[in-house]
Amino acid sequence: MIVKRPTLLVDTVKARRNLQRIHQKIQNCGVKFRPHFKTHQSRAVGRWFRQAGIGSIAVSSLKMAEYFARDGWKDITLALPVNLAEIEDIRRVRRLCRLQLTIESPVSLDILVRKLSGPEIPVCIELDTGQHRSGIPATDRREITTLLRKVEGTAETTFSGFLIHDGHTYQAENAREVRKIYKRTVDTVKNLKTLLSREGITRSLPVSYGDTPSCSLVEDLSAMDEIRCGNFIYYDLMQTRLGACREGDIAVAVAAPVIAKNRQRREIVLYCGAVHLSKECLAGSDGRPVYGHIVTLEESGWSASLPRTAIRSISQEHAVISTTPAVYNRISRGDILGILPVHACLTVHLMRTAKTLEGELITTLGSTVA
Amino acid sequence: MIVKRPTLLVDTVKARRNLQRIHQKIQNCGVKFRPHFKTHQSRAVGRWFRQAGIGSIAVSSLKMAEYFARDGWKDITLALPVNLAEIEDIRRVRRLCRLQLTIESPVSLDILVRKLSGPEIPVCIELDTGQHRSGIPATDRREITTLLRKVEGTAETTFSGFLIHDGHTYQAENAREVRKIYKRTVDTVKNLKTLLSREGITRSLPVSYGDTPSCSLVEDLSAMDEIRCGNFIYYDLMQTRLGACREGDIAVAVAAPVIAKNRQRREIVLYCGAVHLSKECLAGSDGRPVYGHIVTLEESGWSASLPRTAIRSISQEHAVISTTPAVYNRISRGDILGILPVHACLTVHLMRTAKTLEGELITTLGSTVA
Repeated sequence: MIVKRPTLLVDTVKARRNLQRIHQKIQNCGVKFRPHFKTHQSRAVGRWFRQAGIGSIAVSSLKMAEYFARDGWKDITLALPVNLAEIEDIRRVRRLCRLQLTIESPVSLDILVRKLSGPEIPVCIELDTGQHRSGIPATDRREITTLLRKVEGTAETTFSGFLIHDGHTYQAENAREVRKIYKRTVDTVKNLKTLLSREGITRSLPVSYGDTPSCSLVEDLSAMDEIRCGNFIYYDLMQTRLGACREGDIAVAVAAPVIAKNRQRREIVLYCGAVHLSKECLAGSDGRPVYGHIVTLEESGWSASLPRTAIRSISQEHAVISTTPAVYNRISRGDILGILPVHACLTVHLMRTAKTLEGELITTLGSTVA
Repeated sequence: MIVKRPTLLVDTVKARRNLQRIHQKIQNCGVKFRPHFKTHQSRAVGRWFRQAGIGSIAVSSLKMAEYFARDGWKDITLALPVNLAEIEDIRRVRRLCRLQLTIESPVSLDILVRKLSGPEIPVCIELDTGQHRSGIPATDRREITTLLRKVEGTAETTFSGFLIHDGHTYQAENAREVRKIYKRTVDTVKNLKTLLSREGITRSLPVSYGDTPSCSLVEDLSAMDEIRCGNFIYYDLMQTRLGACREGDIAVAVAAPVIAKNRQRREIVLYCGAVHLSKECLAGSDGRPVYGHIVTLEESGWSASLPRTAIRSISQEHAVISTTPAVYNRISRGDILGILPVHACLTVHLMRTAKTLEGELITTLGSTVA
């Protein structure tokens, strides 16, 4: 494959294996799989999921819901507190699929009911089990009961379950901590259900749970009713750091040309910057940020990451690699190197299109909508 | 204006005033102005510059060069070490305009000369005066002399000047430090010219210099021959931090809907995340990151930033604002708030289109190329 400028490569064998592995586990746990499509944002990749028998998905924007609904997806959760400014668009997408909306307050519920007509409105209630982003605190029995009773007591709405995203697993130090967060959430949910049953709410309350670190690292996910992770399809350095995947599972790399070298500092400069990779970083062993690991491109994909070689600074279009003398000496201006990204979701979003190793183009939502 | 989802707003009065102010200063210094267009990436905005009598620009990718060349720009510097993998595209763009390429090594020069035919190739030699990204160290007389002699001794190439980007001004603590960096670079360039004249290179060697902090903060830029800054058109929080602009000069804000609130933590959640703003951040007074300041939208633009109110965490589509009780209580789900971005270049790139306050659409390179 000829690479002229930063190009996102997808190893479809790895990606499909990642999908197969997590799908198998979730099925074995007897839990429903509702993959989040915000990582790949691609109709073509979505079809791999459909071929695997998956019919329900989660998305992170209404545009993304519409994009996938127009490709035939009929059961879509918009896993973000509903944006009341988009009511008209919600109406349009509701004509295409069963669109589950997420709420965290009676205010939003009232407005939805007043402004939407047509079929019943399936709503999820978002609970916060420690990420502290959005959602009602899962320990706030009173607020949860009030909202749940309101959803169930409103003719136009139907309760689709509690929605939990343990995004704080990304701040964990290691796999053990990730598993501990999951365990704590299971306990929190159990406590909540006990409290709710004392309020007379005894029927089954489905829980949808999702984040790639815990869903990759926890073997037994049967305490949940639905799993909603997404990053696993490609994985990235953030996930290898947590032990959620091995480096060999990372299914995307950005191929980028070498444009400069500096002998004194033993640095290689790539044409590839924050507009390709994002500014997401990890802390290196010296405490300074790492914006990507470097691989060499091979006939059948890419190598393991080069030892003591990483992107240590990044600007709009440049990435500066620190490396060893051996690597430095063997790389020339005009060569193409591969970059394992820190955060695949943001990189895929920025790159907008990808190429499979076989040279096939993968488009995304971003390559179709300006 | 109706805002339904994250929307980039441009205050054209402020932007044109920013342009007019810096253009005037550069003219007063008797220096050539070659604005960098990587911040706005927009034909429409480019035309404001043309109306001001500016005819030369800098860009950060070949695609950007082609985009502007097709809009009639005839003198374009690609201010990034030349990407040898794009030779064919360089040939195409060279047919549209005078394209100045940047080199930092004889290796690239040789390949350019071998692979390009047609009119003479104008090349800039990039010097590193302290950013340590790319360029020959400005103290390396030997390497500079060799490359300069090679450029001047090659029939196909012509020397267009030294290219310097003092990007390390962004790491400065304050305006005084920025000015010190500029001063140091002026001294370095002077020393270099003295050394080169001892080598017998006595003719005038033009220097192109660019970065918004120093070009905004230094009054007398007459030591340079050409100024190549770009961010000043919109400015951002990074620039206000350095004192390069006042908050009232920031000409872009992202309008975004409120989707959730948390009373206990006094937080407001916006539908607007790293895919809109980027993950660029500043350190807050408590040391924790700040991803944007918050303004309220008004008939004629936006307010000053709200006191003790900022985005303190960000994920793909969410921004979490910490604020005061007064602001918290007056904001409702469904309201639209404005965000002053930390780094306008990345935000504009991500947003791909903008709206003026008068409701006119501004497209960019990113809205025309997938």
